[in-house]
Amino acid sequence: MSPQPRNPNYKTDVAVSFARQAMMVTAGATLAEVSAGRCVIKAPILNSMTQQHGFAHAALTFAIGDSAAGYSALTLVDAGKEVLTSEMKINLLAPAQGDGLKAVGKVLKAGRRLIVVQADVYALNGDAETHIAALQGTIVPV
Amino acid sequence: MSPQPRNPNYKTDVAVSFARQAMMVTAGATLAEVSAGRCVIKAPILNSMTQQHGFAHAALTFAIGDSAAGYSALTLVDAGKEVLTSEMKINLLAPAQGDGLKAVGKVLKAGRRLIVVQADVYALNGDAETHIAALQGTIVPV
Amino acid sequence: MSPQPRNPNYKTDVAVSFARQAMMVTAGATLAEVSAGRCVIKAPILNSMTQQHGFAHAALTFAIGDSAAGYSALTLVDAGKEVLTSEMKINLLAPAQGDGLKAVGKVLKAGRRLIVVQADVYALNGDAETHIAALQGTIVPV
Amino acid sequence: MSPQPRNPNYKTDVAVSFARQAMMVTAGATLAEVSAGRCVIKAPILNSMTQQHGFAHAALTFAIGDSAAGYSALTLVDAGKEVLTSEMKINLLAPAQGDGLKAVGKVLKAGRRLIVVQADVYALNGDAETHIAALQGTIVPV
Repeated sequence: MSPQPRNPNYKTDVAVSFARQAMMVTAGATLAEVSAGRCVIKAPILNSMTQQHGFAHAALTFAIGDSAAGYSALTLVDAGKEVLTSEMKINLLAPAQGDGLKAVGKVLKAGRRLIVVQADVYALNGDAETHIAALQGTIVPV
Repeated sequence: MSPQPRNPNYKTDVAVSFARQAMMVTAGATLAEVSAGRCVIKAPILNSMTQQHGFAHAALTFAIGDSAAGYSALTLVDAGKEVLTSEMKINLLAPAQGDGLKAVGKVLKAGRRLIVVQADVYALNGDAETHIAALQGTIVPV
Repeated sequence: MSPQPRNPNYKTDVAVSFARQAMMVTAGATLAEVSAGRCVIKAPILNSMTQQHGFAHAALTFAIGDSAAGYSALTLVDAGKEVLTSEMKINLLAPAQGDGLKAVGKVLKAGRRLIVVQADVYALNGDAETHIAALQGTIVPV
Repeated sequence: MSPQPRNPNYKTDVAVSFARQAMMVTAGATLAEVSAGRCVIKAPILNSMTQQHGFAHAALTFAIGDSAAGYSALTLVDAGKEVLTSEMKINLLAPAQGDGLKAVGKVLKAGRRLIVVQADVYALNGDAETHIAALQGTIVPV
């Protein structure tokens, strides 16, 4: 059963909101896919976003995972609403190294007051994808 | 009872590791205090680190909270060891707006294999501090 | 600054709600202290609540930690409201062994729609208390 | 790619460990399925396990979700090892009401020192299943 968006312009609204996030621009992140209850974000591993071993900083992995999760929620709220992260947990599974990162966010449960989301982040190396993080959290429509 | 550092040079080691994190440099973050089982990091709210409403992006709040927590753990491990975040949860309490942010990380339990940590992040406005986030997670010495 | 309860009968309301939780009765748990933004619950370690090594099951530690956190939130909501756990994370710090357990719940941030809480659980051995778990989560007034 | 168990007797070892958990007996829980990297636990909603509205207590949902997750991890460790929950987060999605509960645990990443797991808990009503909780956490082999 596919979730039903209540905002017919949700794709545009997600794109507009994404473009306003300076942090996403700083990270070189792009919106790769938006559909009802789902959002995919990609980002390079810029030198400016690394930690002490040269891998992507956990904050970059968190940034795109949290954003993919949040925008998956935004696809399911009423027009004119925005979303905020209330809480988010990340389990890091493997070092964030490679050509770039991809975060896939999805809605687990879209309530009226709270939206529970998950995101998986992958490191991309040529054709291979390595699962590097799993996020689970709560998004609030405002 | 104060935790006992096993590495007499822990302050230098924390400072060296911090300086190597390009993400912290990008964020303009600085190490404000390091003591046994505790670390304080400050950061401005750069335009490049904001979200769509002009507040600090949750990823910046996460970045300095996670780093303060991780470095509080690094003060208690053996010389030559490093630390990695295994998992971290953040609850966001209030919008991240103001002159800057301050993260205070501390060790709850320093085990041999796992170190459980907490961090609180505050928004600074003149002399006022607003509690904007609480983090709890697990750090692994490697 | 102490949080201000809006329900003058909050202590009675917490006690009535607690008494209706069959799970708390099954666990032999008792309400040890209730004040504005704070709740303490104690429980024995019944054989029926143990795991495979004879220690208290993580679910018992979770049960009293979650309840202490939830009831700390209930002290701060309007009369006639109830509370539900939206999400809760537990970090286990040490084995749950001893004469009994004590959970101390407190409110970090009491919002109108969401209340962020923490709880610490201790194992009691004679006069000694061992910190065995830290919980952080979100409670929703309904 | 199916995870490879290193302990040929993992099914027996999971069953023996499960039988020793008094908490699972108290809850009337049963092991419904065990395979490499996966474990399913079922439980009735006993009156003794309810909260103040007569639904299953969050601690019961946590108990079987955490156990399903933990035993999914146990299927992938060396013979003679046991597992402990290091940390677990639960997001509650819907009230736990119905004929019974079912928890499905699975391994996301089986590391040597840490095993990251997820579990989904469902309420069973006749032929219908309602997703009532999602758990994500870390299990430690000992």
